[in-house]
Amino acid sequence: MLKLYTYFRSSASFRVRIALNLKGLAYEAIPVHLLRDGGEQHAPDYRHKSPLGTVPVLETDNAIIIQSLAIIEYLEETHPVPALLPVDSLARARVRAIAQTISCEIHPLNNLRVLAYLKHTLAADEAVRNVWYRHWVNLGLAGVETQLHQSSETGVYCHGDAPTLADCCLVPQVFNARRFDCSLEAMPTIRRIVAQCETLDAVQRAAPANQPDQE
Amino acid sequence: MLKLYTYFRSSASFRVRIALNLKGLAYEAIPVHLLRDGGEQHAPDYRHKSPLGTVPVLETDNAIIIQSLAIIEYLEETHPVPALLPVDSLARARVRAIAQTISCEIHPLNNLRVLAYLKHTLAADEAVRNVWYRHWVNLGLAGVETQLHQSSETGVYCHGDAPTLADCCLVPQVFNARRFDCSLEAMPTIRRIVAQCETLDAVQRAAPANQPDQE
Repeated sequence: MLKLYTYFRSSASFRVRIALNLKGLAYEAIPVHLLRDGGEQHAPDYRHKSPLGTVPVLETDNAIIIQSLAIIEYLEETHPVPALLPVDSLARARVRAIAQTISCEIHPLNNLRVLAYLKHTLAADEAVRNVWYRHWVNLGLAGVETQLHQSSETGVYCHGDAPTLADCCLVPQVFNARRFDCSLEAMPTIRRIVAQCETLDAVQRAAPANQPDQE
Repeated sequence: MLKLYTYFRSSASFRVRIALNLKGLAYEAIPVHLLRDGGEQHAPDYRHKSPLGTVPVLETDNAIIIQSLAIIEYLEETHPVPALLPVDSLARARVRAIAQTISCEIHPLNNLRVLAYLKHTLAADEAVRNVWYRHWVNLGLAGVETQLHQSSETGVYCHGDAPTLADCCLVPQVFNARRFDCSLEAMPTIRRIVAQCETLDAVQRAAPANQPDQE
């Protein structure tokens, strides 16, 4: 059975949990607590799987795959139904671009290790860190909102009327945004799509609150 | 003809230039100066193409594609020879994971807009910004070095004996690392692979020094 090394509140883990659930793939969740004991992700056994100590990691019978989008592309290639990418190459590029706007322009600036650097090395207090967090979320999600509302290819979901890789990334990013009180007032398309996603059992089961390691 | 909106020193643009050259695809380079006049990427016409004002943008006869890895995946699907991804799904996941370690864990923390935020909003002086820059490069490239040296699939290039998407990302990241005097002493595999990449005409022609907008 597939094993997923995951942390309940990790946005990148949440993406992969949604993808696994959408594809109906059973997996064993192996919690990696990012804060306990200085971070379980730094244990040598885990670092052997994930050199940077990031979650998630997908372990198959014969391989270890890191990086959430690489994992989802792997799942898409090996379990193509239901598809998380459209067929047409331009449409695939659009879906990947939305996913990457989130995974390359927003999330990397706001993960735990960056917030820890701001706190411990730059002596940024909580208020300053929250402004930082919201700045990148607001900027990035405003870009995603534009990508979504200016395209006729946006449907019930980010692309058409079935969930894709883009939705797998959008839902966790919006979860984070809400957690840090970022305003989504100016982002009606994002709010509409995420509300739709949240009606899906696959998304609900992937939510942080429904993980075995949730606190 | 394909149009590439590019900035000579942009690492993400550099990735796509390498990919275009490796595939032998002619393109028109349209420079977008990220520093002049407050940043040409913020001009309304450009922001219509790229909502966040990021480079590169690929413009085809009938579409606009943003995000460097989405662009390269599009080129791979529409011009599959020479391949920049292996055939096997696990191998493809490995190549994408290396590319994403660079594009999601290193580069986002060090691009111009983040350095500008550190300077203007957090009042971080140049020395502090350089420590920040090198911290994320060292951490991230150490992870890539581990990914490379611990796998028997690493060859002359990051994966086997032909350049892939991973090399398209590694070369620009190492260019940036050198520019900011990051030590690559502990990264012999990366140094060996990048030296090999730099013998390729496709890589040389993509280098910042050989762009029409280089300064």
